[in-house]
Amino acid sequence: MPEFRRILLTGAAGSLGSHLRRGLAPLADTLRLLDMNPLGAAAANEETLQLDLSDREAAIAASRDCDAIVHFAGHPREQTFEEILADTLPASYHIFEGARLNGVKRVIYASSIHAVGFHPVEAVPDTRAQHRPDTFYGLTKTFTEDLASLYWDKYGVESVMLRICSCFPEPADRRMLWSWLSFADCVRLVESALLAPRVGFSVIYGTSANAAAAVSNAHAGHLGFVPQDSADGHAAAILARTPRPDPEAVGTRVVGGGFAATGHPDDAA
Amino acid sequence: MPEFRRILLTGAAGSLGSHLRRGLAPLADTLRLLDMNPLGAAAANEETLQLDLSDREAAIAASRDCDAIVHFAGHPREQTFEEILADTLPASYHIFEGARLNGVKRVIYASSIHAVGFHPVEAVPDTRAQHRPDTFYGLTKTFTEDLASLYWDKYGVESVMLRICSCFPEPADRRMLWSWLSFADCVRLVESALLAPRVGFSVIYGTSANAAAAVSNAHAGHLGFVPQDSADGHAAAILARTPRPDPEAVGTRVVGGGFAATGHPDDAA
Amino acid sequence: MPEFRRILLTGAAGSLGSHLRRGLAPLADTLRLLDMNPLGAAAANEETLQLDLSDREAAIAASRDCDAIVHFAGHPREQTFEEILADTLPASYHIFEGARLNGVKRVIYASSIHAVGFHPVEAVPDTRAQHRPDTFYGLTKTFTEDLASLYWDKYGVESVMLRICSCFPEPADRRMLWSWLSFADCVRLVESALLAPRVGFSVIYGTSANAAAAVSNAHAGHLGFVPQDSADGHAAAILARTPRPDPEAVGTRVVGGGFAATGHPDDAA
Amino acid sequence: MPEFRRILLTGAAGSLGSHLRRGLAPLADTLRLLDMNPLGAAAANEETLQLDLSDREAAIAASRDCDAIVHFAGHPREQTFEEILADTLPASYHIFEGARLNGVKRVIYASSIHAVGFHPVEAVPDTRAQHRPDTFYGLTKTFTEDLASLYWDKYGVESVMLRICSCFPEPADRRMLWSWLSFADCVRLVESALLAPRVGFSVIYGTSANAAAAVSNAHAGHLGFVPQDSADGHAAAILARTPRPDPEAVGTRVVGGGFAATGHPDDAA
Amino acid sequence: MPEFRRILLTGAAGSLGSHLRRGLAPLADTLRLLDMNPLGAAAANEETLQLDLSDREAAIAASRDCDAIVHFAGHPREQTFEEILADTLPASYHIFEGARLNGVKRVIYASSIHAVGFHPVEAVPDTRAQHRPDTFYGLTKTFTEDLASLYWDKYGVESVMLRICSCFPEPADRRMLWSWLSFADCVRLVESALLAPRVGFSVIYGTSANAAAAVSNAHAGHLGFVPQDSADGHAAAILARTPRPDPEAVGTRVVGGGFAATGHPDDAA
Amino acid sequence: MPEFRRILLTGAAGSLGSHLRRGLAPLADTLRLLDMNPLGAAAANEETLQLDLSDREAAIAASRDCDAIVHFAGHPREQTFEEILADTLPASYHIFEGARLNGVKRVIYASSIHAVGFHPVEAVPDTRAQHRPDTFYGLTKTFTEDLASLYWDKYGVESVMLRICSCFPEPADRRMLWSWLSFADCVRLVESALLAPRVGFSVIYGTSANAAAAVSNAHAGHLGFVPQDSADGHAAAILARTPRPDPEAVGTRVVGGGFAATGHPDDAA
Repeated sequence: MPEFRRILLTGAAGSLGSHLRRGLAPLADTLRLLDMNPLGAAAANEETLQLDLSDREAAIAASRDCDAIVHFAGHPREQTFEEILADTLPASYHIFEGARLNGVKRVIYASSIHAVGFHPVEAVPDTRAQHRPDTFYGLTKTFTEDLASLYWDKYGVESVMLRICSCFPEPADRRMLWSWLSFADCVRLVESALLAPRVGFSVIYGTSANAAAAVSNAHAGHLGFVPQDSADGHAAAILARTPRPDPEAVGTRVVGGGFAATGHPDDAA
Repeated sequence: MPEFRRILLTGAAGSLGSHLRRGLAPLADTLRLLDMNPLGAAAANEETLQLDLSDREAAIAASRDCDAIVHFAGHPREQTFEEILADTLPASYHIFEGARLNGVKRVIYASSIHAVGFHPVEAVPDTRAQHRPDTFYGLTKTFTEDLASLYWDKYGVESVMLRICSCFPEPADRRMLWSWLSFADCVRLVESALLAPRVGFSVIYGTSANAAAAVSNAHAGHLGFVPQDSADGHAAAILARTPRPDPEAVGTRVVGGGFAATGHPDDAA
Repeated sequence: MPEFRRILLTGAAGSLGSHLRRGLAPLADTLRLLDMNPLGAAAANEETLQLDLSDREAAIAASRDCDAIVHFAGHPREQTFEEILADTLPASYHIFEGARLNGVKRVIYASSIHAVGFHPVEAVPDTRAQHRPDTFYGLTKTFTEDLASLYWDKYGVESVMLRICSCFPEPADRRMLWSWLSFADCVRLVESALLAPRVGFSVIYGTSANAAAAVSNAHAGHLGFVPQDSADGHAAAILARTPRPDPEAVGTRVVGGGFAATGHPDDAA
Repeated sequence: MPEFRRILLTGAAGSLGSHLRRGLAPLADTLRLLDMNPLGAAAANEETLQLDLSDREAAIAASRDCDAIVHFAGHPREQTFEEILADTLPASYHIFEGARLNGVKRVIYASSIHAVGFHPVEAVPDTRAQHRPDTFYGLTKTFTEDLASLYWDKYGVESVMLRICSCFPEPADRRMLWSWLSFADCVRLVESALLAPRVGFSVIYGTSANAAAAVSNAHAGHLGFVPQDSADGHAAAILARTPRPDPEAVGTRVVGGGFAATGHPDDAA
Repeated sequence: MPEFRRILLTGAAGSLGSHLRRGLAPLADTLRLLDMNPLGAAAANEETLQLDLSDREAAIAASRDCDAIVHFAGHPREQTFEEILADTLPASYHIFEGARLNGVKRVIYASSIHAVGFHPVEAVPDTRAQHRPDTFYGLTKTFTEDLASLYWDKYGVESVMLRICSCFPEPADRRMLWSWLSFADCVRLVESALLAPRVGFSVIYGTSANAAAAVSNAHAGHLGFVPQDSADGHAAAILARTPRPDPEAVGTRVVGGGFAATGHPDDAA
Repeated sequence: MPEFRRILLTGAAGSLGSHLRRGLAPLADTLRLLDMNPLGAAAANEETLQLDLSDREAAIAASRDCDAIVHFAGHPREQTFEEILADTLPASYHIFEGARLNGVKRVIYASSIHAVGFHPVEAVPDTRAQHRPDTFYGLTKTFTEDLASLYWDKYGVESVMLRICSCFPEPADRRMLWSWLSFADCVRLVESALLAPRVGFSVIYGTSANAAAAVSNAHAGHLGFVPQDSADGHAAAILARTPRPDPEAVGTRVVGGGFAATGHPDDAA
């Protein structure tokens, strides 16, 4: 018998969402998949919901009868302030309000390394490091983390902030030699966060078992995440095909990488 | 000759704003006062602007030709999420965008103890403690702190987050025996933050020189704030007229006090 | 109207107890004085109890109808293990059991610097430093601190551990230039611990406002203790009449002073 | 040639003691087994002593001619204060007095997670965390740890506090997925503590190599303990046969588990 | 009767040395003054030695029959590597060798803020912060601090590293509003370091009681230094006559001030 | 195509240097080998330079046209102060001056455990621990580390301090069970330090993957060093053939081992 009755998975049509759709299936009687994009046909144990989480009523209704939420909806790119205000921040709020109003006990949130992106690489920030967002995108992550903290302290909704580093098919550059998270390890990360007996408000970095580690999970052992994949096998090829980076360039200097080096989104317009 | 050419003071018609209007006058050739409420007649060295900071264009224009911003506009009470989204968050953004676009070097922000309100009193949080907002009001403070961090790291706008505890005419209850900040000390606090040669992104708690201190400025010495007033003279009277608090009540247990004990703003509706 | 209805003060016939008997009188309608030695005539607002706290039944009955306990009974000298087992440990237990069974909300305990006496002076231990008892006497303090921790975590009895350093009529040697606590400051210390709105399980060092400080109350600000006396006026005379200490002698090297240099109590027999 | 001439093993007839009896045999010419229960026939390199460690004279004599003590005697269950006073505390004292008087250089002590049982799971306490006993049983552990600290600082008796988490034949519930210590790993833990060249006064948590880790040995690397077993293989079965725990229940919330949720031992009577 | 029989004061003809010559006189029967420059006539309780500390034999002989050394000789300006190698490093070594060979128990050393000059102002480094020298001058300070550490750990010579910030007749610029140390407070600082019963190897920052503090003595309380002077009275005048500094200029950004902004000494040649 | 155009390797004729000569060959078009001793015939991609690094001009010229320096020249034994002054300190300076003047971006330095040798084993120092050199040899390491810090902060020369513990053909005694670094792991360590995209000023301990670890690389994960060898296979043999060490002997007590127990080099003369 699966651990959960019904898990709501948001962003289910996205890149990570698709892997979670497959990977989390065994954990629940029903996986309720939500996205603003089409989700394809629902499998036997699936329910699908196509909607925009900025729609308060629909978003709150979406977690009814769920015992956990895996919130992966979002745009993994820089956005304007107006966009995050219209879209990502309300979505986060509606998710946590849904949890509060529907009695959902735990929310697993796809936060990001960009919540702390301006810490220098050699500082190796741990999960207690202060927020240092590197973009407006990162600011949606710090905001949602603080919102989650409030919902735990005040309303008893547990949550785990997964600070995903670089979740791609394979490591593509030198930074990803430490920051890469395989899709399979991403699924493991969500599983750990769902199954840990007690999380309160917890934070964990999401990387695979890479030789290099510019972030530290030293205080996140209670979540039981043990990555199985590694970027190491790609190191030789990546070193061979990419030039030595300038260590003083912002994108090399801080854990947020290239995001920290982007300009203001309005300036591009 | 004053230190600054022109300082923009937002929230200038408010309770703290009025004290700052008087107190900061000697620091600038011109004090540009901004509020959504009437500001009365402008003195010789004053300019007044009545406008709503959620108006992007006007808000950004407001800091033109300023060399510092003292951002005290805000509603010192719990708000709904919809309110903060429509009002406080855009106001913060417009202030920092104004600083960036107009080349204003430093922003002094009226943050609040409610940014970390859920830390237990006996933990005595310092300025490096993690965010633990106790309300949506507190969430506007953590959001603006993170925004300020981004604008420092990415755009070189210095800022000081003043985590004001309880700024009232006099201490009114037992909690204020540690959390009280006199109006005069509030002015001193802003002065320190304006005059310190270098602040980068700094955080400091705002209390007077009270015997009790449930927050710690041990890492904020570079700002040079030395409060001169004290709640201590009110202790006997307050003890006499108020009952012993329940130490396990939320409002006594955490540094945020009564705010941490409030319900969800929607539930009152 | 006093803050408390009835405070139980143990060790009330002792040196510190006598000062507390006078000093705490204004805080309670009734001060219930307890000692194994005669307590003299009871004043108008006093009750006296002559009994041995190792007598379980009597000790527990002693805190009936009290709203706070100030536990200063004890032998401020090294003891054999058999003595502490027969006497001090049961007394501590009976005090906390009394608090639990009688619904007394808070216990103020005369712990001691000897609970952490083996920390080197130059380490300047704070209130989070690990236990390093320097004697069996110190061991009664660490035991009672741990017992108090248990009674807070499990039974909701708040307590403050006062790690009294050197409470004597005046500083008598060079170590006391940092460790001295005047009797008046000792009363102030107990008052602070009684009146703080919330203490949970708290630890604080008890010294006067001396120039030197080999222990740190940096994390005890919430208790609001501000000493008013100082050993500094005695420094010249003490330096003149005492020889330079050997910095490598145990009694100079560690904060516990001479206690850390004593031999095993059985060896003296 | 074995490392030790003679090791005293107390609690040798107990569950863990039996495994140590076998496992430690290669380390010493002679294993002196002690228990209050019958120990069976002594093997070639064994000596047996049936006695109660609360008997001072016999207990001290027991470590004569030993070069190490492995002190595992005790009752792994909650006890009344009167029991621990009559039994466990004197036993600990006699063991350390024996070490002091007989010149035994090192004591390995079976402390317990219950010495720090009230730390929340998500705090992942390390070996420098403060004592937070969860029971009177836990209080015997904190007391003995402090006693050991005293005997190291004052009398030069080295010791290692093994904070054993859950040492059972196999993991039996969800908490044991992080807290389980196999018998074989328990033997490895004692071996490490015996063989490390220098331990002073050291603390280490005893768990197997489980995916989850709610305690941290980050500061205990000098002891060289590397567990070889793991609870992970039992995870699927345990998850399948046990219900989701309530994360706010005391027994789930803190590292001490169910012990922290027990009532006062007198209340059961 | 003075505390010391004979104190060796090096650099006694220098700016600080002259104040120490007067200020330390009451502490010793004899003050042995050493400088490479003329020292004027010796007072009744003075001995004078004109010599270069890079002369090994003479330098070692200089501390014979002393019970303390106050080592203030040095060039408070940037130097070439060749200079420090020929001059300052040997001088330091000879001083500590003298202490070792002549049985002098304690050395007070004029280290400098420039030993940690590259820490950012807003980091408020404490006495445990890592070395970050800002000049070759600063490197002579970190070297001598490490040498002193070695002589304490290995040879039992106690020492106090006084990280003097800005010791001048009066504060001259905005940085000195936090870094200024009056001559009288400098004398008090040396006195404290000499008179503290136990220092082992200690570090302390030397500033007066200024409102601003960009360094922290939170872990140096055992030395008992309480400055009596303050730069605060000079603040208004300094602010009026100096321009606002650029907070991103190196000399404003880090605690070392202008030294950190100097070029390589060879480049000037 | 190799990562580097030309790497300068100093100490290339030494024990570790010979392994690096072979191991680093694939990383650069040209390996420039430098030693004061003969280097044998140069291979196809090698250049050899026989010279003494205390010769300023030659030493600086040696890094011309290099893009990295691996500085392993030195005498791995205690030296007199006069020797280090004449030899090791200038060599270090010339290396960093060469880097500055020739635009070499990164220096990898063979520092040593003896830079922090006096930390007790049970303290398990990490890479942020304070310097505690145990010899004049160790003092050359702390000096060069501080010099490297200066060259990073001021001149932008990146560097990694490799605190090599015990690099020998195989572990030879009980201490090496934690401190041993195989030659192959030493090569891996240098490779990691060369290839990490960003190091700023970093410190890392060099040991193999041994069960015991008396030093901690918890903050050095960004360097990506993963040792592959282990001393563990030698444990049984070493335990069998060496006596139990005295845990209070200096050489056992501190991480520096026997070096910390050596006398002053002059005393041997």
